Amino acid sequence: MKVEVITTGTELLLGEILNTNFTWLAQELNLRGFDVLYQTTVGDNPARMKEVLDIAAGRADIVITSGGLGPTRGDITKELVAEYCGVDMYMNLEVWNHIHDLLSRRNICIASNNEKQALVPSGAIVLHNAVGTAPGLVLEHGSTTFIMLPGPPFELQHVCEQELFPYFEQRFPHLGIIKSHTLKVRGIGESNLAEMLDDIIVHQSNPTIALYARHGEILVRLTAKASSAEEADALIAAMQERVEKIIGPYVYGYDGDTLPEVLGKELLTRKQTIAFAESCTGGLASSLMTDVPGSSEYVKGSVISYTNEVKNLVINVSKTTLSKKGAVSEEAALEMAEGVRNVIGSDMAVSITGLAGPGGGTRRKPVGLVYIAVADENGASCRKYNFTGTRTQIKQRAALTALGLALDRLKEYTAQNDLEETTDDHDADR
Amino acid sequence: MKVEVITTGTELLLGEILNTNFTWLAQELNLRGFDVLYQTTVGDNPARMKEVLDIAAGRADIVITSGGLGPTRGDITKELVAEYCGVDMYMNLEVWNHIHDLLSRRNICIASNNEKQALVPSGAIVLHNAVGTAPGLVLEHGSTTFIMLPGPPFELQHVCEQELFPYFEQRFPHLGIIKSHTLKVRGIGESNLAEMLDDIIVHQSNPTIALYARHGEILVRLTAKASSAEEADALIAAMQERVEKIIGPYVYGYDGDTLPEVLGKELLTRKQTIAFAESCTGGLASSLMTDVPGSSEYVKGSVISYTNEVKNLVINVSKTTLSKKGAVSEEAALEMAEGVRNVIGSDMAVSITGLAGPGGGTRRKPVGLVYIAVADENGASCRKYNFTGTRTQIKQRAALTALGLALDRLKEYTAQNDLEETTDDHDADR
Repeated sequence: MKVEVITTGTELLLGEILNTNFTWLAQELNLRGFDVLYQTTVGDNPARMKEVLDIAAGRADIVITSGGLGPTRGDITKELVAEYCGVDMYMNLEVWNHIHDLLSRRNICIASNNEKQALVPSGAIVLHNAVGTAPGLVLEHGSTTFIMLPGPPFELQHVCEQELFPYFEQRFPHLGIIKSHTLKVRGIGESNLAEMLDDIIVHQSNPTIALYARHGEILVRLTAKASSAEEADALIAAMQERVEKIIGPYVYGYDGDTLPEVLGKELLTRKQTIAFAESCTGGLASSLMTDVPGSSEYVKGSVISYTNEVKNLVINVSKTTLSKKGAVSEEAALEMAEGVRNVIGSDMAVSITGLAGPGGGTRRKPVGLVYIAVADENGASCRKYNFTGTRTQIKQRAALTALGLALDRLKEYTAQNDLEETTDDHDADR
Repeated sequence: MKVEVITTGTELLLGEILNTNFTWLAQELNLRGFDVLYQTTVGDNPARMKEVLDIAAGRADIVITSGGLGPTRGDITKELVAEYCGVDMYMNLEVWNHIHDLLSRRNICIASNNEKQALVPSGAIVLHNAVGTAPGLVLEHGSTTFIMLPGPPFELQHVCEQELFPYFEQRFPHLGIIKSHTLKVRGIGESNLAEMLDDIIVHQSNPTIALYARHGEILVRLTAKASSAEEADALIAAMQERVEKIIGPYVYGYDGDTLPEVLGKELLTRKQTIAFAESCTGGLASSLMTDVPGSSEYVKGSVISYTNEVKNLVINVSKTTLSKKGAVSEEAALEMAEGVRNVIGSDMAVSITGLAGPGGGTRRKPVGLVYIAVADENGASCRKYNFTGTRTQIKQRAALTALGLALDRLKEYTAQNDLEETTDDHDADR
């Protein structure tokens, strides 16, 4: 089923509002197996609107309009579609009563132009709009189905979810449904990941697999097409198992999960607290962690040690290290992590020191060079990175990588503990 | 001049991204006197794209495409427009050299498919893209002007501002030109500001004046239409003088200025350093300050004191204050600011303590309650705020307000110093 969505309204053409109606409709329609092939925006002009309707009817099976169902003279969608289909309009009493009730409940005087909203094209199916005065309408004409939806996003979504989508399931049962599931990956580059998954990517059919790099992490999206939600879920689960067998250690979460959330949950589960010593990230890692509600349960505090003086006086990085190795060095990173862990009194501490640029780089220590260290009761370790990008991108990448290293460290010791427990059990068996 | 904008890309039709390119283009084109009458979205499909180009050329004078200029097989915009116009493509050496330079600077190996990006339709004007590998292109065909722009929003905007809009001014001089200038305002609410400017707003014509509230600050945008840039500048300058006579003390910057930049410049000029003690903002204020290149000149460091223990042990907030008044109190804010100033050894210090929510609020101390204190050699002062919004919005508003208060404090003492200097001069005269 080929779909064209026509969004109307001068405010769209003036750039005053983003076309969120189309984005929402596109997601929902694709999910339900429709092929959204065209989207057109046009103003409230009868000649241009008629032309756009004509073109859409010629190339799509389903033409969905949003907007232009209001009570004013400028609202012309319903009138033009009825004219295009050659049908009259009649006053629908059910709609009229609903408008009446809704306006009285809101203490709004009913106006004569509200009558216009109760006019329905002959033969149209009315999609009840419980949250507004303009109902949605379905009108079949030849091989084209016109679907008219109200423009306010809240009303449009309500009418779709309550009326249109159930109608689709009855009317087009053969379309089946589409579901997708996203694996969030960190600690590996996109090209390496693509290489590891090469065999699956090359032979993909249903579910499909796609990689997206975004904000220093990679999304692996699995999308299945099936005749039922259960079947789609089963297809995705089987594919996910195949994928995770290969890249499992790099998967840190799913769908809406964020790294600060996942790390937060791990800390909470283990009753561990964390602190940061930030140099080049300037507070970003701590800020990301504290974006999560309830993070005060595990974030104790941090020190942003932007100068050597603060590194030395506040978190006890030795003057020798700073003068001999420099503030951007493995040694300084390790001392920062251990120092801030002592000063803040946290279970775990992460330090970040590097050059975010654009100035300050040298050949030996170029912009993008960042050392990240993690310290806990088992000691401290440090890794070196060369990030690329603008100053804020380097800050972002370094901060997210730091959270990732903390997560790895937490999991590493759990893995060891699990191993020890298993060994204990084994011993007990003997 | 009638315009149709064609936005291409499967990710738009899948509803994966909002069409921000169109909204931005629509604003800029309307501002410049163009009539944006149609917008169409279509996928990377040759037959459908050709059909859409054909329809657009039939009903618009200017057809602008965004996207489809990349190096992959799926990028077909340039090829189809050239085919539509019946022209060949040639390898443009200037473009090829630019791609080469850009990729080597980013340490990316040049691939054979990058050559495709250096192909230019015969007779096309190249719009140089300094920030990406795909140049913009202008190709006139009969009465239609095709304009091809890269899809990434940052590149599209860069190419428009640096190349396309200056080209428009030369090519369509009769449209006149439009210039706008934005005053950035803080420390006053939108309705109060509108009231102060009421007389100007009601009687506006050219330049127009518009207020926008955004991320805790207000933008006052002056837009002039004129036949030359000089005339537009003069109109804007006269209006700006009128506006600043009324709201001058609240204007902290212009156009692209950000509060962290403006505060940074003031600190630099006065050779002052700054430190933060952040509780509810969790590092955001420090992170915003250190987004500015060169900020290590004046940001010494910060302490994120997320727990009472850290407030007491690291920055010396008294246990009595914490137990009697609570961590979210004027007293705690003042002690935090003075404490962090001593610990970090900065000239100036700012503290932020409050409830970012969504949990943790009480009737006496609701979510959104934030105390911000500023300390320097002249002492310390504190202000109380009730912010609204989500957790991250409250963090953002509190952090920006804190930077604003620091700026006020710096200017306040300059004003006094200026006064003292004037008085001294006066004395010297006597």
